[in-house]
Amino acid sequence: MDSAPRDALEFPESDRGFLEPHLPPKDGSGPQSDLPFTTLTFATSLDSSLSLSPGARTVLSGPQSKAMTHYLRSRHDGIIIGVGTAVADDPGLNCRISGVGGYGKEGLDGQPRPVVIDPTARWEFSDESKLFQLCREGRGRAPWIITAVEKPDAEKVALLERYGGRFISAKMIRLHTGGHQIDWQDLLVTLKSNGLGSVMIEGGGQVIKSLLSPHYMYLLNSVIVTIAPTWLGEGGVVVSPARRFDESGNAISAARLKNVKWYPFGEDVVLCGQVKLSD
Amino acid sequence: MDSAPRDALEFPESDRGFLEPHLPPKDGSGPQSDLPFTTLTFATSLDSSLSLSPGARTVLSGPQSKAMTHYLRSRHDGIIIGVGTAVADDPGLNCRISGVGGYGKEGLDGQPRPVVIDPTARWEFSDESKLFQLCREGRGRAPWIITAVEKPDAEKVALLERYGGRFISAKMIRLHTGGHQIDWQDLLVTLKSNGLGSVMIEGGGQVIKSLLSPHYMYLLNSVIVTIAPTWLGEGGVVVSPARRFDESGNAISAARLKNVKWYPFGEDVVLCGQVKLSD
Repeated sequence: MDSAPRDALEFPESDRGFLEPHLPPKDGSGPQSDLPFTTLTFATSLDSSLSLSPGARTVLSGPQSKAMTHYLRSRHDGIIIGVGTAVADDPGLNCRISGVGGYGKEGLDGQPRPVVIDPTARWEFSDESKLFQLCREGRGRAPWIITAVEKPDAEKVALLERYGGRFISAKMIRLHTGGHQIDWQDLLVTLKSNGLGSVMIEGGGQVIKSLLSPHYMYLLNSVIVTIAPTWLGEGGVVVSPARRFDESGNAISAARLKNVKWYPFGEDVVLCGQVKLSD
Repeated sequence: MDSAPRDALEFPESDRGFLEPHLPPKDGSGPQSDLPFTTLTFATSLDSSLSLSPGARTVLSGPQSKAMTHYLRSRHDGIIIGVGTAVADDPGLNCRISGVGGYGKEGLDGQPRPVVIDPTARWEFSDESKLFQLCREGRGRAPWIITAVEKPDAEKVALLERYGGRFISAKMIRLHTGGHQIDWQDLLVTLKSNGLGSVMIEGGGQVIKSLLSPHYMYLLNSVIVTIAPTWLGEGGVVVSPARRFDESGNAISAARLKNVKWYPFGEDVVLCGQVKLSD
């Protein structure tokens, strides 16, 4: 493949500089630990919504921000999303930056590994799912699916493995609400031991909320949030962490960022920072 | 008064430039209409909350943003807030920028007129209310209270008038929920005819929501939102307009801004723009 497909995205060098301090080191020297370099990134409206409703394809941020997301993908070994997003969006989760594997270059260099967190293995993927279409076209990697199910459906396993993906079992706590609590520390260690030195977590709302909780925020090396100058209005898929209280029982802010930089970017703004672990 | 009181705020010339295109013209040449130049301004967290809970004094934005708010006040003839904010916060609603009346200068030049929207005249102000303390000290103007009550309590009227304030009657629609719908066009015309060539609307949540509705957003000449790099968490006083639908009944974004500028400002970002009236 010599020329980039028509849907390749350009993200000029001049726009890359501001992101560099917030990204995994280019030489691969990640944190000297059993954890990957972990970036939390998402785009919201002014009223902190990811989309108009679950599954609604909402064009929120501008074309520059979209190219930025794909550039960020090229700089991480893996992309993590929750199963809700996989079911609702049928996402591609590949990197379309001109020059990466499948977009102007042979192989899959620069293509991140999609990681779908699916506690009950409910995602009904098929050959027609966008992710697998991209695999067939040599434009993306097959997903890893993280699940609490010990023996996932054999047909699903076979399909997944045919594309080079797989299920990975992880311990999860089943909540009385029926949901599952992810042990993010455990999960990230698993991903690192499977070769992902850096991951970016893209959503959805529940995943983001969980990572911004006091239990897990220490795992985040970098936070990159794009904000669009739009209010989606009440009823959207809102990103807001659980309420937090001080020792006297008074509400305090749930999470703060430090080393904050704001970069106006087209009509949007990009906020980069790190979670502040104590006030 | 020759020197500014100790609580005077400085807002350097170098920071004023970016705001200028978003403010009422300095020569007083407002819109040639019976409406004042109207600015909507407020500060939120990343999760679009004004405060942790109604009445909770939440330090959200940094000292630079605070000084900016007071500078904005010096550039408007009036400040509008809802009664909820008056009751919860006991606000001063004056301008503490060094050099305005009461802060290094005789008289009240540069001090905006506080305007409190109080449909049922429920605000129980007294001599001890912060607003009236500031009046006594020559550091702020007495409020105008906009109400649907035809004959407000005589003692309240007397107290208010002693400081140079007054009640102003306005037509409001009583909703079946018990609340009142403000006719913003009518209200703003009234304020202009009473001498306010420019007003800034500071909150709270209900007032902002109402002005960002399709009925009234055309009244806004300028929108200035400060965003702090903090998530307050679920349960805060959220700013989010009512959901909007297109002709086919599909949800669409509730409000968008145009002519958008983002200005990083200390740890915060300041977003300036105008409401986009059609897509």
